[in-house]
Amino acid sequence: MAAPVIEADAVVIGAGPVGLFQVFQLGLHEVQAHVIDALPYAGGQCMELYADKPIYDIPGTPVTTGRGLTQSLLQQIAPFQAQMHFSQLVESVNRLDDGRLCLVTDAGTTFITKALIVAAGVGAFVPRKPAIPALEAFEGRQVHYLHDRALADGSFADSHVVVLGGDESAVVAALEAAQPSGNARGPASVTLIHRRDVFAGEPDTLQLLESARAAGKVRVLAAQVTGCVTASDQLKALQVLTAEGTETSVTADHVLVRLGMSPKMGPIAEWGWTLERKQVPVNTENFQSEIPGIFAVGDINFYPGKRKLILSGFHEATLAAFGAMAFISPEKKVHLQYTTTSPRLHQLLGVGTQEKS
Amino acid sequence: MAAPVIEADAVVIGAGPVGLFQVFQLGLHEVQAHVIDALPYAGGQCMELYADKPIYDIPGTPVTTGRGLTQSLLQQIAPFQAQMHFSQLVESVNRLDDGRLCLVTDAGTTFITKALIVAAGVGAFVPRKPAIPALEAFEGRQVHYLHDRALADGSFADSHVVVLGGDESAVVAALEAAQPSGNARGPASVTLIHRRDVFAGEPDTLQLLESARAAGKVRVLAAQVTGCVTASDQLKALQVLTAEGTETSVTADHVLVRLGMSPKMGPIAEWGWTLERKQVPVNTENFQSEIPGIFAVGDINFYPGKRKLILSGFHEATLAAFGAMAFISPEKKVHLQYTTTSPRLHQLLGVGTQEKS
Repeated sequence: MAAPVIEADAVVIGAGPVGLFQVFQLGLHEVQAHVIDALPYAGGQCMELYADKPIYDIPGTPVTTGRGLTQSLLQQIAPFQAQMHFSQLVESVNRLDDGRLCLVTDAGTTFITKALIVAAGVGAFVPRKPAIPALEAFEGRQVHYLHDRALADGSFADSHVVVLGGDESAVVAALEAAQPSGNARGPASVTLIHRRDVFAGEPDTLQLLESARAAGKVRVLAAQVTGCVTASDQLKALQVLTAEGTETSVTADHVLVRLGMSPKMGPIAEWGWTLERKQVPVNTENFQSEIPGIFAVGDINFYPGKRKLILSGFHEATLAAFGAMAFISPEKKVHLQYTTTSPRLHQLLGVGTQEKS
Repeated sequence: MAAPVIEADAVVIGAGPVGLFQVFQLGLHEVQAHVIDALPYAGGQCMELYADKPIYDIPGTPVTTGRGLTQSLLQQIAPFQAQMHFSQLVESVNRLDDGRLCLVTDAGTTFITKALIVAAGVGAFVPRKPAIPALEAFEGRQVHYLHDRALADGSFADSHVVVLGGDESAVVAALEAAQPSGNARGPASVTLIHRRDVFAGEPDTLQLLESARAAGKVRVLAAQVTGCVTASDQLKALQVLTAEGTETSVTADHVLVRLGMSPKMGPIAEWGWTLERKQVPVNTENFQSEIPGIFAVGDINFYPGKRKLILSGFHEATLAAFGAMAFISPEKKVHLQYTTTSPRLHQLLGVGTQEKS
């Protein structure tokens, strides 16, 4: 199967609030953006770090949450029908002979774009890994992270499944493994390993865990993973040290890693630009980086006076959209139009134009 | 009576959306701002030009109106208890020997401030005047504009009152003059003059006008004012040309001018800075103008890439607040704190700090 190649006017890296508003501003210029994010959903930091925590400084919104802001922005950008590409990390960027940029993701997708706007925040949120280097050889086959798309219904049929982690996503993974959907055959066993027999999560989820434990469908083991047992290029078991100080091993055909996410600058750091304190220096006229056609907005950029605030990212994304137009439609005169008065913008937004009074 | 002198850390000129958000950002730095606006209410352009028109590009707010945005911002800044000074135009700014700035308004109020942030938009909204220069001599005595504060209950007792204008505010002024509140004696007559016998306004207001006309309390005259009759330094009557082409005069002890508002740069243009296309050049690091301690944010400023958008003003106000702190508390280290996580900001905002999960 040939790897997909997508030709685009604009690619946005990062589906956090600033990347989402970038879609809106490009949309006002009649540009449909492609958005790539390492997470399997929109919201970035807002969803990973403070989905349910209050935010008071979004202008005109006295209070919201990370989730609330994400939902408002998704509603606001809906008319522009951005193409979202989740669970992918951009690994390389190269300039083509025709001046366009060629991006390749770790999912094997290639994007060829006229303009690239990096709204990558503090970096890509990637799963924390257990400190057992030998497990890496089994990633995608027997060791699975949150956005592992290879897993289909029935992947765990008759298998011994081990889930690592102590938060809601770990508990949900264990419950889902124990109770496959549809006609899929169930696993041979499900073991949830966490350093303590205490789990974080919604009360309903924790109640379901209690029931699954009582029914013998999920075994909980308070332990730390210390190593693994392999044979014939296959993972056979995890070695653990239990909370009581006993060394033992747990049979494992599949390991679901749910140890949380942490942001990593990742390959972006190696794109040939000079970073300042891990940030991309930009021109405040259009938020272009030193690489023509590549713009940086939000927490990832740097300029004199920079403050890492969402509302600054909104402004930066707005000026970056004007800057990107010089690469997307160099022949087009770009004028500022107002959403209040422009019939053309009303048409793009899918709203009726009001009569002028 | 001595003219009032107000000492302040920060004065904001302009109570439009950007001036209001400036209050919020100063508040996060524990600075209580004084806000001066030529209009008698908050909202600036948002209220004057598009109070009921839709706005689609405030980030995180898929749709609002000028009035809606103003109300949201007033709610958001409420914890910071800014002192609002409406219906005043700043006429002069001078530097005192101690480095502070001294502002004097046309209401005679003096402000002495460490930092001044000009969020004056397209200028001060001032009332449009009838094209009869001779009327100017009677302003404040017999000719009254929207924010004339000399008018007390009973000012029109037994007087012939003429209202000029065709919109809601003209109709309301005529109705209020015809029906004084409390025990005030009524006028001798009220005449509403507009070029056509067609008025804009809320249906309820127009219905009240119909009733007042039917009851003989308000006379409507479709006419244009062409001159005035004066005697002994008193305005006696207005000369008009009716829609039917007849010249006549209308007895007038008081004239209420309600011809709408238009923005004027006003005295700000003469403050000794070099303007570019009627805008104040600023440094994008902190939005300071060439005059130390005077910052300019929103539509009134200029820098490379500038777009006259409300959301850009929000960003500019945020960085200007950090810049202003160098004048307000030069000895204080100013750190960026987040409204999501800072217990101190929660205290200032009057909200409870959530436990970290």
